[in-house]
Amino acid sequence: MTDEERVDFVRACLVDVLESLSETSAAEPVVLTTEPLDFDGVEGYEQAVRDEALTPAVNTVLREAETPVGVVVADLPLVTPDALERLFAPDADFVVAPGRGGGTNAFVTRVPEFRVNYHGTSFLDHVEKARELGASVDVVDSFRLSTDADEADDLVEALLHGEGRAAEFVRERFELVEDEERRVGVRRFDRQK
Amino acid sequence: MTDEERVDFVRACLVDVLESLSETSAAEPVVLTTEPLDFDGVEGYEQAVRDEALTPAVNTVLREAETPVGVVVADLPLVTPDALERLFAPDADFVVAPGRGGGTNAFVTRVPEFRVNYHGTSFLDHVEKARELGASVDVVDSFRLSTDADEADDLVEALLHGEGRAAEFVRERFELVEDEERRVGVRRFDRQK
Repeated sequence: MTDEERVDFVRACLVDVLESLSETSAAEPVVLTTEPLDFDGVEGYEQAVRDEALTPAVNTVLREAETPVGVVVADLPLVTPDALERLFAPDADFVVAPGRGGGTNAFVTRVPEFRVNYHGTSFLDHVEKARELGASVDVVDSFRLSTDADEADDLVEALLHGEGRAAEFVRERFELVEDEERRVGVRRFDRQK
Repeated sequence: MTDEERVDFVRACLVDVLESLSETSAAEPVVLTTEPLDFDGVEGYEQAVRDEALTPAVNTVLREAETPVGVVVADLPLVTPDALERLFAPDADFVVAPGRGGGTNAFVTRVPEFRVNYHGTSFLDHVEKARELGASVDVVDSFRLSTDADEADDLVEALLHGEGRAAEFVRERFELVEDEERRVGVRRFDRQK
C-alpha cells in the first residue's frame, strides 16, 4: 500500500471498531488520539487528544476512568459487534483478547490499579500484571480480535472475513491470489485489464 | 526446525488434538492417516488408513459417516477442549472454524451430502458449498482453531498460548525474542551458553 492508502485503511479500521462498539453493550466509546481526527465516520464520537506515546496515554485514561473500563486498538479489520461482545460478556476482573504475535488487542479491567505496557509480547505481561493485582483473568479466544493490520498477510484476512469499511477498502484495491503451492496472498488489481 | 523435529512437532500436535477431543462431547475420534501411526499418545485411538490425497480421503469418510460428523486438522498447536467445544455447541447444519489464510481447520456437518475440497482458500468454498446444500452456517471465531502449524510465526503462538505437548516441544527448543522494533520471533536456545 502507499502511505496514503495505509492512513485511509487504518481510518477505515477505526470507524469499523467504533461502529461495532456502538452496537454492543459497551458505554460510549472515546477515541484516544494524538491529534484531533476529522473524517467521515468519526463524527459524534468523543475524542481524547493526548500528545504522548501509547503506553502513558492509555495509562492516563486508566487512571482517570471509572471501572470497568475497556481499551480496544483501532486496527482490527475483522472486528464485529459479536466479537467485541465476547470481551464484555465475562465477569472476570480482567478480560483480554490477545493479538497475533503476543500483542494486546483489547481488554476490559474491573481492577482500577491495572496499567498497561504495550510492546511486542505485552499480552503475557498484562496477564501477569493482572494476576499480581489479584484479578481473575479471562482470555477471549477470538480470531477476529487477534487479527490486526500490521502485515500484508492481514489483508488476506480482511478480504476473506472482513465485514466493514476496512474490508471494503481492501476489496476495492486488492484480490486474493493462490500460488501453485496453494498458499494465499493478495495482489493489486491490474487496472490495465 | 529439522525434518525430524517437524515430524515430532506435528505428532505432538496430533496428540494434543486427540486429547482435547477426548475431553469434549464429541464421539470417539478416528485418526485419518496415510500409514498406520505408532507413537506415544495415539494408542487407543481408532485409525483409518487411507492411501489417498487429503480431499478424496476425507470425502470417503464423509460418504461413509453418519451425521453429524466433524473433521479437525491435526496441526493445531493451540487446541484446547474449550475451543473444540465451540465447534460442537452450535446446532447449525454446518459449523466451521477457518484457519489463517483461508483454510478450513475444523468443521462439523449435519448435511450428509457435504463434501470437501481442501486448498488455500477452501474456507470460502466450503461455506458456499454448504449454503448451496441449503445448510445453515455458523462460523466459529476462534484464534486457537485458526492457528495451524505452517510457518515459523506459528511457533510464536505455540510458545505464547499453547497448553499441550506441541507447546512443550517448542518451549524445550525455542525461546521468544523481541527485536528493536518490538516485533516478536523465536530463536533456538543457544546450547553453548
